[in-house]
Amino acid sequence: MVPHLVTALTGPINELEQRILDGMPAIERWFRLEWMEHTPPFYTAVDVRNAGFKLAPVDANFFPGGWNYLTTEMLPLAVQAAQAAIEKICPEARNLLVIPENRGRNTSYMANVAQLVRIFQMAGLNVRVGSIDPAVKSPKKVDLPDGSTVCLEPVVRTKRRLGLKNFDPCTILLNTDLAAGTPGILEDLHEQYLLPPLHAGWSVRRKSNHLHSYEEVSKRFGKLLGIDPWLIQSIYARAEGVDLARGKGVEGLTAAVDQVLTKVRRKYKEYGINEKPFVIVKSENGASSLPISTIRDVKELEALTKKPRQKAMAGATTDDAGPTDVIVQEGVLTRERVHDGMAEPVVYMMDRYVVGGFYRVHPDRGADESLALPGASFVPLAFSQSGHLPQPGAKPGASAPNRFYMYGVIGRLAMVAASYELEATNPEAEVYE
Amino acid sequence: MVPHLVTALTGPINELEQRILDGMPAIERWFRLEWMEHTPPFYTAVDVRNAGFKLAPVDANFFPGGWNYLTTEMLPLAVQAAQAAIEKICPEARNLLVIPENRGRNTSYMANVAQLVRIFQMAGLNVRVGSIDPAVKSPKKVDLPDGSTVCLEPVVRTKRRLGLKNFDPCTILLNTDLAAGTPGILEDLHEQYLLPPLHAGWSVRRKSNHLHSYEEVSKRFGKLLGIDPWLIQSIYARAEGVDLARGKGVEGLTAAVDQVLTKVRRKYKEYGINEKPFVIVKSENGASSLPISTIRDVKELEALTKKPRQKAMAGATTDDAGPTDVIVQEGVLTRERVHDGMAEPVVYMMDRYVVGGFYRVHPDRGADESLALPGASFVPLAFSQSGHLPQPGAKPGASAPNRFYMYGVIGRLAMVAASYELEATNPEAEVYE
Repeated sequence: MVPHLVTALTGPINELEQRILDGMPAIERWFRLEWMEHTPPFYTAVDVRNAGFKLAPVDANFFPGGWNYLTTEMLPLAVQAAQAAIEKICPEARNLLVIPENRGRNTSYMANVAQLVRIFQMAGLNVRVGSIDPAVKSPKKVDLPDGSTVCLEPVVRTKRRLGLKNFDPCTILLNTDLAAGTPGILEDLHEQYLLPPLHAGWSVRRKSNHLHSYEEVSKRFGKLLGIDPWLIQSIYARAEGVDLARGKGVEGLTAAVDQVLTKVRRKYKEYGINEKPFVIVKSENGASSLPISTIRDVKELEALTKKPRQKAMAGATTDDAGPTDVIVQEGVLTRERVHDGMAEPVVYMMDRYVVGGFYRVHPDRGADESLALPGASFVPLAFSQSGHLPQPGAKPGASAPNRFYMYGVIGRLAMVAASYELEATNPEAEVYE
Repeated sequence: MVPHLVTALTGPINELEQRILDGMPAIERWFRLEWMEHTPPFYTAVDVRNAGFKLAPVDANFFPGGWNYLTTEMLPLAVQAAQAAIEKICPEARNLLVIPENRGRNTSYMANVAQLVRIFQMAGLNVRVGSIDPAVKSPKKVDLPDGSTVCLEPVVRTKRRLGLKNFDPCTILLNTDLAAGTPGILEDLHEQYLLPPLHAGWSVRRKSNHLHSYEEVSKRFGKLLGIDPWLIQSIYARAEGVDLARGKGVEGLTAAVDQVLTKVRRKYKEYGINEKPFVIVKSENGASSLPISTIRDVKELEALTKKPRQKAMAGATTDDAGPTDVIVQEGVLTRERVHDGMAEPVVYMMDRYVVGGFYRVHPDRGADESLALPGASFVPLAFSQSGHLPQPGAKPGASAPNRFYMYGVIGRLAMVAASYELEATNPEAEVYE
C-alpha cells in the first residue's frame, strides 16, 4: 500500500512499541479522559522523530498546510472528524470562511487550501476562501495542477464581523500561522468563531510554553505506561536575549547548550546509546530570523556567531531580529529513510482524531538535522487504510500498522500538550461574563 | 475500486440525486440539528431499495450483524465513529461485553462478532464476548476461516450486574435482536450501560412505530429539499389480529392491501410510472412466523391463506403464531443488479456516522421481492474509500460516489426515525430521578 515505507519501518524500537501496544486500551481511555477536561486544537500537525531508541515530537503546528499530501483514502476520516468538530463548536454552522496564507498563486500551497475546502464542504458547510492579502482586491481564480481551481476573494470587514461580499460566515478557519503578527482585520471578531484562536499564532506563541506542557504530559503518560518519559520527550533549556550577530546573550546560550548536552550524554550513557548527542537551537517564536541550527558541541556556537545574519526559512519575515529568546532542545535522530532521503513522519489530526500523515523527506540532510527546509518532499502515509490501527497479535516491529499507531499516540500527546498550552496562554481565560 | 458495482449504478434517478447533491450543506446541517435534539441508536443497518424513480429504506436493524461483509477500508471509519460513541456515552469505559446471538459456531455470524470485537478494541476498550446461551457452560473458542478466533464465554449474572468470570464491564453491547423475547438475565441491569436498550429488541419493537416516525421525518426532509416525500418513503397500512391459517382478520388485511395498492397506483399515474405496484406483507414484530410476502393483487391474498403455516426465516422462533398484527407496506422495486442477481444496498452506521455498506444480492429473486433470505450473498461497497462522499461537479448518475452519498442520506433518515421511535417507546421515558 505504501511500499517504499518498508525501509522506514525497520529498527529496534520494539520495547517502547510493545509497551504502547500493550497499553492500547489504557492509552485510549487516558485520551478520552483528557478530552473531557480539555479542548483539542481545531487541527494540528505534529512532526515526530524516531531515533530507534526514542520517539518524540519535535514540532506542533496549529495551522497545518500540506493537507494535499495526505492520501485520498484519508479523506473520509478527515471529513468525519471535521463533522465531529463542527458539531461540538457550532452545530448551526452554515458558512465557513477559510483564511489562507498570503502566498499568492503558489499552487502547492493552494492545493492544500483546495483540500481543506473539500473536507469542509463534504462535512456539510458552504466554504469560501477569503484572502487578507491587501493585494487581493477582486476574486482571483487559481488553477491547480489537478484541474480544480480555488477562488481567492478579498475579505470584507465590518465593525464586528469578517466575511466576503454576499457571504457572512459564522466560523472563520485560519490556515495562516500569523508569524508576521496578528493583522488588525482579525481582531475584535467577537460574534464569529475564529479558529484556531489568535493566541495560537506564531507571533504570540512561545515554544517553551509548548515544551513545558509537553513535559508535564509526557511525565503523566510515562507513569501510565511505566516508562521513562525521556523516551518520548526532548530535554530543553531556554536562553534569553540572544543576538548572535551582535554577540549578545552568547554566554547564556552556551550555558544552555552545555546543560542540555550534558543531560543527554548522561541519558545516552544510562541507556548504552552509542551516538553523538546534539541539540537544536531555535528561536522561542516562529517569527524570528534565527536559523534552526544543529549543535553537536559548545564550540560550534562560535561558528554560528560568525555567520552572517540570514533568514532561516522563506516564512521568516522579521527583518531586523534584534535580541531574541532561544530554545535549546535535545535533538532526536531520525533513523527513518524513504527513497534514500532522511525522513520524519508528520501526523495530521482534526479535532481529537488522527486522520492521516506523511513522511517529510530531505535528500541532502543528515540524521541529526532539521528536514523542514526547501528541498523537502512528501510521501503520503496511508494511515487511513489501516495505518493508525494496530493489529493485535502482530509481532512488534514487524508490521507497519503497529508503528503508525505509535506515531499517532505521540502526535496526540503533543496535541494534549497543545491544548494545555492554549489554555494557559488564553488572554481571555479570566474574563467571565 | 468496486468494479462490479458499475451495473448497479445506471438508471434514471438523476433528478432526486441532483436535489440531494445540491442540498448537501443544508442536509448535513439538518442532520447536525437533529442530533442536537435526539440520540442516534448505537449502531444501525438500513436496507435501501432504489427503484430508479424513488429510493426508500425498507428495514432498519438496531442489532446489525454482517460487519464482516464491510471492506477493511471501512475499519478506521468505524473505529473513529465508535470512539465518538464511547466518548459520548461513557468516556471512563474500560471493559465492553459483547452479547452475540445464540448461533453456536456459525462461522459467518461469528466472523461478524470478531469484526465488532476488533472495532471496539481499536477504539480502546477491553472487549470480551459473553454468551447468554444456556448451552455455553465454559469458554469455547470458535475458529474462523481467516485464522482468527472468537472466544465465547458464559455470562455471569449477579444481582445487579452482568459480566464474565473476572471481567466486569461497564457497557454491554447487544448483537442479538432478542426476537424470542427479552431474557431475564438482561433485565434490571441499572448499573451498566445496556446498548441498544431492551425496548429496541424485536419482541418489543413494532414496525408501525418506525414507519410512523419515518413518515414524519420524510415529510420534514421533503420540505427541506422541496420534494414529494413519497420519493423517499413507502406508503403503508396496518391490519390487526391476522391469522391466515385460521382465516382470521383476512378482511382487514384485504382492505389494507387494497388501500395501499390504490394509493401507490395513483402515485404511479401521477409520475407516469409504467410498473405494476405491489405491497409487502409482514408482521408488526420480528418474532412472528408470518412469512414476508409480495402481493401484487388483492386476489393473491387468497393463495397466502391456503399456504401451510411456515417459518419465514431461520431467525423466527415463535412456534405458534396465533393472530398477529400485520404491516402492509408499499413495495419498492430494486433496479440494481450485481453479478446478475437482484441487489439492494445496506448502509451501516455507527453512532451518527455512515461507516460502510454492502450490496445484498440474491440470484433467484425478482425485482419486487425481499432479498433478505437464505441464498443471499454480500458484495462489499467501499463506502470508506470515497464512497459516501459526493464529488462536487461530477455529472449526476455518472459517478458512483454521488449515488452512495444519497444512500447514506436515506440510511441516516431512517436512523433519525429510529431515534424518534426509541424515544417514543422508551418505557423509562417518564421516570425522572
